[in-house]
Order: sequence, then structure tokens, then C-alpha cells
Amino acid sequence: MSNSSQIVFGPRVRKSPFFLSTMKYGAKAFTVYNHMYLPVSYEGTTKDYHNLLNGVQLWDVGVERQIQIKGPDAEALSQFLTPRNIKKCAIGQAMYAPFLDFNGGFLNDPVMLKIAEDCYWFSIADGDSLLWVQAIAEGYKFVAEVTEPDVSPLQVQGPNSTELMAKVFGDWVHDLKFYRFKEFNHEGIPMVIARMGYSRELCYEIFLQDHSLGDKLWETLWKTGQDLNISAGGPNIILRLEGGIFSYLGDLDRSNNPFEVGLDWMIDLDQEDDFIGKDALSEINVKGPEKKLMGAEIYGDAIESSNEHQFPVLIDGKVVGSMNAMAYSPRLDKNLSYVFLDIEHAQAGKEIIISAPEGDLKAKVVDLPWLQRVKK
Amino acid sequence: MSNSSQIVFGPRVRKSPFFLSTMKYGAKAFTVYNHMYLPVSYEGTTKDYHNLLNGVQLWDVGVERQIQIKGPDAEALSQFLTPRNIKKCAIGQAMYAPFLDFNGGFLNDPVMLKIAEDCYWFSIADGDSLLWVQAIAEGYKFVAEVTEPDVSPLQVQGPNSTELMAKVFGDWVHDLKFYRFKEFNHEGIPMVIARMGYSRELCYEIFLQDHSLGDKLWETLWKTGQDLNISAGGPNIILRLEGGIFSYLGDLDRSNNPFEVGLDWMIDLDQEDDFIGKDALSEINVKGPEKKLMGAEIYGDAIESSNEHQFPVLIDGKVVGSMNAMAYSPRLDKNLSYVFLDIEHAQAGKEIIISAPEGDLKAKVVDLPWLQRVKK
Repeated sequence: MSNSSQIVFGPRVRKSPFFLSTMKYGAKAFTVYNHMYLPVSYEGTTKDYHNLLNGVQLWDVGVERQIQIKGPDAEALSQFLTPRNIKKCAIGQAMYAPFLDFNGGFLNDPVMLKIAEDCYWFSIADGDSLLWVQAIAEGYKFVAEVTEPDVSPLQVQGPNSTELMAKVFGDWVHDLKFYRFKEFNHEGIPMVIARMGYSRELCYEIFLQDHSLGDKLWETLWKTGQDLNISAGGPNIILRLEGGIFSYLGDLDRSNNPFEVGLDWMIDLDQEDDFIGKDALSEINVKGPEKKLMGAEIYGDAIESSNEHQFPVLIDGKVVGSMNAMAYSPRLDKNLSYVFLDIEHAQAGKEIIISAPEGDLKAKVVDLPWLQRVKK
Repeated sequence: MSNSSQIVFGPRVRKSPFFLSTMKYGAKAFTVYNHMYLPVSYEGTTKDYHNLLNGVQLWDVGVERQIQIKGPDAEALSQFLTPRNIKKCAIGQAMYAPFLDFNGGFLNDPVMLKIAEDCYWFSIADGDSLLWVQAIAEGYKFVAEVTEPDVSPLQVQGPNSTELMAKVFGDWVHDLKFYRFKEFNHEGIPMVIARMGYSRELCYEIFLQDHSLGDKLWETLWKTGQDLNISAGGPNIILRLEGGIFSYLGDLDRSNNPFEVGLDWMIDLDQEDDFIGKDALSEINVKGPEKKLMGAEIYGDAIESSNEHQFPVLIDGKVVGSMNAMAYSPRLDKNLSYVFLDIEHAQAGKEIIISAPEGDLKAKVVDLPWLQRVKK
């Protein structure tokens, strides 16, 4: 919390259906994301991290707005929007399915949910992708209705999350597979319940389908969670770095393509269907990327688990990249960071200097991620 | 500042080129706007307001991103995006030129600058209109390059603003007409300098064309402004209400069309060219709008000059609209507010009840605006 000031609450920025609960249970700092307040700290980055790992934690991620594509061309339009081959996706299945621009740069990195044969949701990161999708649909004459439905996600994370979810919603939760979801109604609360993973910990995402019931849903989980060490938290930089998970606009943006961040595995250039960015990606696939996002372990004592700016990265006094995010991981007892490096230097084992305002930080380049996903 | 919490500064949200200067000169509270920090308070809403009216004030509005449309179809694409007839705009002239969606709802309310015969800028409010414009350009096959150039606006407002601008940039500033601009280079700082008006006070907007020179530009103005009672400020709710000026997403959004907010004067349905929303607006023009944004004067003592939520508006115990923004105006000695009213109640003179959490507020509906633009 060293780099902070006041934020003003007003009607221009929207509140999530869980806003009152987050205030009641101690949200101390916010950012703004998709024109909404996103709580990011309750007891501080490190304490929030430990709280999650020692029980179960609720994250108000109502800022993840859904784009619903519905109609005869729902599949065709969804496919045109992403390089992932979505024809392989089953109803009730979710897929990480980024939106790219015509140059192959990231416009957003949503998770897609196939709700029905003619209905898809894209759960988006920060950015008005709705405008992009609606304009593409109109301009390219897809027959599909593109809307933002009344859906607000709440995440339930941590080792006790399965137990909490099963206690509240029933034993069927135990059988829910990774990136699968089910529509469910609990005491009048309509939801889509998914197993997901913003961090590598056990994680469920509840897509609340009635914004007026946010606090009711929160209180239901909170009450049952009393025996399970429940806490409130938010997107956490330590968990993100440990898991090699990216924050759109924080770690990557429109100037980056999937090859640069190790996400080329999801591009299907061989599929017959056209998609936005296909030509550009085919070219990059031949030439190779010019830079790459890597991990770097910073030597020395535990660092502050946040950074306000990107810092230059140097080898032999020459700038070869930038450092985007850093945090100390208590359970790995290491200082973790993400660095973008010119491709010739993007190799595990290289020694680099991160030029921070308070002095140089020496670090070693490593492959991502540090931690794999926790399996049940 | 009653409704506030902490905001965290980090690399996910961008900083304007004037950010360090705003911190140096006392910015106390921020919001996030177009993925950037926007300073909104220095000494508090009312003191900032008085400071502006008693001298000259700098506003860091670098959050107003520019969309540049350049190429053979620049005019055609620009016209397709807005209901305003932009063919009447001269080079060196600016125009309020909203973006509407296909239903006639506000996507954004930019000011357009005609930079050259084949180059237009749209200075946008909060929202990623760039995605909309790029997708429309691709889908409808307009031959134009759509980019976000390195341009960051700084506003110079208040009774002493002309004198400050002329002292720094030269006497030609005296001849600059309302909504006209000129490209200018001052000691290596490339700029477009315009006479504009976010409030109804005298106002200039400097479109800085090199983000690395933000603090240099700020300091130049600050130094010369020492004799002219210079201060720092930001978008101010009192000035906005007095002048009948709207905040996109605060006062109006996509659910509103121009007829509902008194902006139908800028729609040219008779022009030959097609534009987005033309069919929808033609229909609304025949049927008439269903609700209307009006002013309302709240009786009683001076109210708090901010509100966190929208409040219901009632007549005879029945909800007939909502109150979006309110503030006490010291120079009018009145409590001002914006209310959206069902069309049958949108008449000056009507008495309404604004249902605030701390108790009912009695008010009288009036026409907008309270204050006209200050002429030199």
C-alpha cells in the first residue's frame, strides 16, 4: 500500500453486486476495472495471500463483464474473434480464448463459456471488448445478438473451497471437472458455477445471474465458511506470479502477441475458418517473436510485493527489456518477477540487472511458471 | 471526499505525462478513466472551484485519449461514426461529435478536431472507442488508418487563462476563436492549442504531442502563472452542473439517446450520408423520447457537493425518474442537480421529491443550463 492515494466513489464508476459485502468485510483498497470498483486489498497483499492458502477466500470479480453472443452465427462469430479452435469446445465447457487485433496483438484475454449450441459468454479482462465484438458483428454481417447480460462473477479460492462449495450447493460440486460448469439455482439465486483458476489454487467461479442477490450470495457463503477459515481477498500479485498467470494491461497488452508470452499453444493456424489476426500470426509464426515474457528471480532479501512502474532490464549496461511485476513469494522464499526480454536474451539461466529507482536488482532468468496447478 | 477509500498505483493503469506534476502540486484524490489515473481533487471540490474562478487553473485531462482517423476515407468514416454533419467543419475547427450505437444510444461523446482534409481526431470520454472505430473501419472497408497518437490534453481554465496563454505562447492566442485550434511549437514542445470549454468558463486545451514533455509544459505554465493566481484542479461537479455540461457514464450512457439529453440539435437526419444510428434516431424523432434529462433545484440548506449513488425521484409517491448528480453552487447560492424524468413530468416548474438515504429532498424542475458560456 505504499503507492497509493485516495479514490473517490461516485455514480460514474459502477459498483458490483458484492460491493456492500466487500466494504462490510474490510476492503481497504480498490482499483477501477471495466468502469467498476475492484477491491484489491483487505489486510494487505501478503496477509491476504496467507489467508487464502490457509482456508477459503471470496473474491469480488464482478468487474469481469460477460459478452454474450447468441443466435444462428454465435459459433461462427466467436470463432472469428479468437485464434483458439473453439469448435472443440463442448456445452458446459470453458476455454481460455483471447481476442486479438488484426496485427495479432492482445485486445483482451477472456475465458469463453459455451452455454448452449447458439450461446457463448466471454468473461473479459479490463477493456470495452463489447464495442469491438458488436462492431465486428455488424460490419461482417454475423447474425447474432451481442449483449452484456446481468452476470457478475464471484470467485471462491483456496484449499477449503471445494468443501465450502459442496456444503452450500451440494455434493455434485465434487464431480465438477476443471474448466467445466453447470447452471444451478440455490434458494432462488440463479447462477452458473464453474471450476476455474485465476491462481493455481483450487478455484470456483460463481457467475451470479441476478445483480440484486449479490449480498445474499456472499452472506450464504460467508456463514457456511465460518468453520472453514473463510476470508475476503482479491486478485493477488504473489499468487499471480507464482502461477505464471498474466494480468491484461499489467503484464501484456496490445503491443504483444501470443508467441511473446508463451500462449502460442492455443493458436490453431491449421483450422479452415478464418479468424482475426490469422495472417499476422502466420507471419510471426515463421519469423519468430522479437521478445519474450520470462520469469526472473531477484537475488537478496525479500522485496516489496508491488511496483508502481515498469523498470528497465539491462545486460552489460545495455537495455534488453523491462520488468513488469515483482513480488516476494513466502512459500517459495524467492523474489519473483516477470521480465520482457529481447528474444536473444530470453533464456533461462541468464543474469540480468533490473534498474529500480532505489538501486539495481540482480536477477536470474527462469522459465515460467514457478508453481503448477493444485489438483484435487 | 466523504465517499472515498484507497486507490493503488500500479503499472496496469497508465499515468499521464503530467502525473508527477499533479502529485507535486497537491493532487489528493483520483479516479480511473480510460485506463489512466485522473486527478479530481486538490483542496476539495469547493475550494478547487473558487481557485479556478479567482485566477487560472491547470487540469490534467491526459485521460482524454485521441482517436486519429487518417487516410482517403477519413471524412467518410468520421461521418459514419457520428450524427453530426461534419462536412461543415473547417480545418482548424473542432465540433462536439458524439458516437452513437445502432440503437441511437451514446457510445461516447467526443469532441472532433479536423486536423487536415484527410485527418481527424476524436477526443474521447471514458470508454475504449478505439476498438469500436477500428472494428467499424475494418468491417465496413473504410480506407483509413485508425490509431491512438501520442497526444495528451492539458486544460487551462478560468478568467486569467487568456492572459496566461498569451504570455506564454504569444498574442495570437487573443485571436483564437471558440472551438478553433492551431498547431504550435513552443521551445521544442509540439502542441495543438484550442479554445474549448469543459466548463462555461474561459478555457483552452493544449493537446501535447510528446508525452515526454508533460512536466516541462506544466512547469512553464506554472511559472508564468505565478502573477495570475494559478492553481491546479480537475473536472469539477459544481462547474459541470452550473454549465449544464454532461459527464459520460456519470450523467448519460448507452441507454440514452440525444433527444433525451437535449442534444438533438446536433443530429442531421437530412444529410445524404448514412451514419450509425440514423434509422433508430429517425424513429425516435417521430415518436419522441420517453424520458428527459432536466435540471432540478433542491430546496433548503447547502447540500454536500457529491453523491455516491443515483437516487430515485418521486411525484405523489410514484417513482418518475432518478437523480444523477448534485452540488451546491456558491455563486448561484442554489443546490443544483440533474434528474432524468419520465417525459410527461419533464417540465420546468414541477415539484419533485429526491429520495436520498438520509431523507427526502424537495426540489423544483428547471430548464438547463443555469449559466451560459463566458464570452471574452
